[in-house]
Amino acid sequence: MSTVPMVEFEQATGLVKEVYDDMIATRKMTRIPNFWKTLATHPPTLASTWSEWKAVMGTPGRLDRLTKEMIAVAVSTTNRSTYCVNAHSAAAIKAGMDKEMLGELMAVIGFFNKVNRMSDGYQVEPDIFPKME
Amino acid sequence: MSTVPMVEFEQATGLVKEVYDDMIATRKMTRIPNFWKTLATHPPTLASTWSEWKAVMGTPGRLDRLTKEMIAVAVSTTNRSTYCVNAHSAAAIKAGMDKEMLGELMAVIGFFNKVNRMSDGYQVEPDIFPKME
Amino acid sequence: MSTVPMVEFEQATGLVKEVYDDMIATRKMTRIPNFWKTLATHPPTLASTWSEWKAVMGTPGRLDRLTKEMIAVAVSTTNRSTYCVNAHSAAAIKAGMDKEMLGELMAVIGFFNKVNRMSDGYQVEPDIFPKME
Amino acid sequence: MSTVPMVEFEQATGLVKEVYDDMIATRKMTRIPNFWKTLATHPPTLASTWSEWKAVMGTPGRLDRLTKEMIAVAVSTTNRSTYCVNAHSAAAIKAGMDKEMLGELMAVIGFFNKVNRMSDGYQVEPDIFPKME
Amino acid sequence: MSTVPMVEFEQATGLVKEVYDDMIATRKMTRIPNFWKTLATHPPTLASTWSEWKAVMGTPGRLDRLTKEMIAVAVSTTNRSTYCVNAHSAAAIKAGMDKEMLGELMAVIGFFNKVNRMSDGYQVEPDIFPKME
Amino acid sequence: MSTVPMVEFEQATGLVKEVYDDMIATRKMTRIPNFWKTLATHPPTLASTWSEWKAVMGTPGRLDRLTKEMIAVAVSTTNRSTYCVNAHSAAAIKAGMDKEMLGELMAVIGFFNKVNRMSDGYQVEPDIFPKME
Repeated sequence: MSTVPMVEFEQATGLVKEVYDDMIATRKMTRIPNFWKTLATHPPTLASTWSEWKAVMGTPGRLDRLTKEMIAVAVSTTNRSTYCVNAHSAAAIKAGMDKEMLGELMAVIGFFNKVNRMSDGYQVEPDIFPKME
Repeated sequence: MSTVPMVEFEQATGLVKEVYDDMIATRKMTRIPNFWKTLATHPPTLASTWSEWKAVMGTPGRLDRLTKEMIAVAVSTTNRSTYCVNAHSAAAIKAGMDKEMLGELMAVIGFFNKVNRMSDGYQVEPDIFPKME
Repeated sequence: MSTVPMVEFEQATGLVKEVYDDMIATRKMTRIPNFWKTLATHPPTLASTWSEWKAVMGTPGRLDRLTKEMIAVAVSTTNRSTYCVNAHSAAAIKAGMDKEMLGELMAVIGFFNKVNRMSDGYQVEPDIFPKME
Repeated sequence: MSTVPMVEFEQATGLVKEVYDDMIATRKMTRIPNFWKTLATHPPTLASTWSEWKAVMGTPGRLDRLTKEMIAVAVSTTNRSTYCVNAHSAAAIKAGMDKEMLGELMAVIGFFNKVNRMSDGYQVEPDIFPKME
Repeated sequence: MSTVPMVEFEQATGLVKEVYDDMIATRKMTRIPNFWKTLATHPPTLASTWSEWKAVMGTPGRLDRLTKEMIAVAVSTTNRSTYCVNAHSAAAIKAGMDKEMLGELMAVIGFFNKVNRMSDGYQVEPDIFPKME
Repeated sequence: MSTVPMVEFEQATGLVKEVYDDMIATRKMTRIPNFWKTLATHPPTLASTWSEWKAVMGTPGRLDRLTKEMIAVAVSTTNRSTYCVNAHSAAAIKAGMDKEMLGELMAVIGFFNKVNRMSDGYQVEPDIFPKME
């Protein structure tokens, strides 16, 4: 159970209500996820985090939505964040990830968690690469 | 400096030499990176890790190479692995990532590291989503 | 369920009983939390960890108790330790943290988890600052 | 060295210049730190991260600046982020943290990193606490 | 619940069936653990991870099985991986770890999680040690 | 460079001098490592951390010293703590770890960092095992 009681849709007023309405319109959702209902207990954080979601995840850019959702799963898995692994696995599936792509994603995540530690554990010095211009 | 002295190309024999030769042929490299020269101090780990690299990163699959390299950067950044952030940023750039794509990638990585912690810190309960069939 | 069966208050003898009694007297508790009942399966670790709690958390110092409990939440959130996030959120609330302060705390925790990763991911070199004298 | 060449103050134009000027005016700085000069390679991320800094760190709230900087050190230490540990240790010192307060801060950070792992390692079940109303 | 429906023993065919049969023969198990039944949704990852288990954990080497299982608990605890802490605590117990050894193991894990953070938090420079020849 | 200037051996007085003398006598060292010289800036933390080192690492118990040093490397590698990986790799080598044992250790560390993330990323539910009695 969240540390604080969540702000349910029916209870929302002012800035919180504005964000909830925008969220439902933008993401075609039928209910507000628990994360956002919890953030709503501190309205400025709700509003700025929602703005950031729209800029980072909701705006078409150079990376497509499916790629971004798989990166979300990679980060959340590496941080072992139960809530976000659950939510963004579902979002990646909705964006088109099937069982085989999930298998490849997990193989890449697993491989780098392994070699990250082996390179750190052996104290390997970085190679020199050309940097971006 | 690595905990153990690395096995230089000229010193390689047997299984290590086989792996080095295959690595140079497969990846068109002109020198063996420090990570692999360090793993070579334990030949079975060198051989199995190189096999895994070929299966996970070197084989065409459902995720393309650039996507995999960006996931490698996302995992390595979240684990703060200096060696791998350096090596796979270079690999992603070589595979086509430009400054703007890197900017989007970092924005996604940053956003999820933030919301991972906020959802855990507030003890938010997972929402229920349909699972994959 | 803990890996080992916990030592209940009624079962405690010797060093474990001494620690339990001191804990109840010092912290005005009516029951021993699960963490300490589990540590009691290895009495020297129970005793030394309890000593450390008293020195670090229970002794008035330059940082007040509420600040320390908020730092406990920050560390436990960043490590995603379910047990400690739960226990020390409750302790911070008991020490005076309200919903708005929790909101600010989570905003700071979220912001630094984000910028920690962005600075590592971009391989940014440290700035030079004057050190403490 | 950063993955991308940083945008120096003299090179800044448009949105980047606006942020740099605001940063210098707001924080009374004489030079732009490397983190921000690196983010400037992706102007929207620079602008939104700077906005977030102002809202989270630069605006007077319920937590004072020194407390926030110590939480920044706690998070950055737990994530082992070299850049941010360096920058926010300096910021906390500037905000009034002396050697003894740093000692207490490190003792709290150390203690919770230890008990976080012991509670997870022993698989201790959370205690039930009253939640915030 | 796993993101994907697991492959039950009765459903296994081809490569998955081969791995399941080998696993049961090698480890004298009466049922396939959930981890492997989940990996079976991506057969090449199942097969290569099982090979790696046999090479790393199942083959007699310089480190004995109990030592390896305690290291597994140390890593899984530090990563806070619920599944693996649970599975490898059980495996270490089966390999001979008793309550007192578990207590010492947790004391070592706790101590290093603490001093890891204190050395990083204080920005302590590495000492110079002779490296391995 | 440490955040605070370290307390050199020649500067030590009172409690700090007592700890330094005990450390040199106990560990047969010819110089005080940087970690301890930094902790000495907060004498109670120096004293209690040194006590804990003696109890956890310096006292013969059920786990031998080499096993404990390898667990120290496993934890420090997983936390990516540069200082401690360096110091405890050296300590493990001094306690008898050779190149082949280091290779096996890194293979175990790598394998569990991989499967920790794959089990979390796939949201695998724990199996039920008998607990310790």
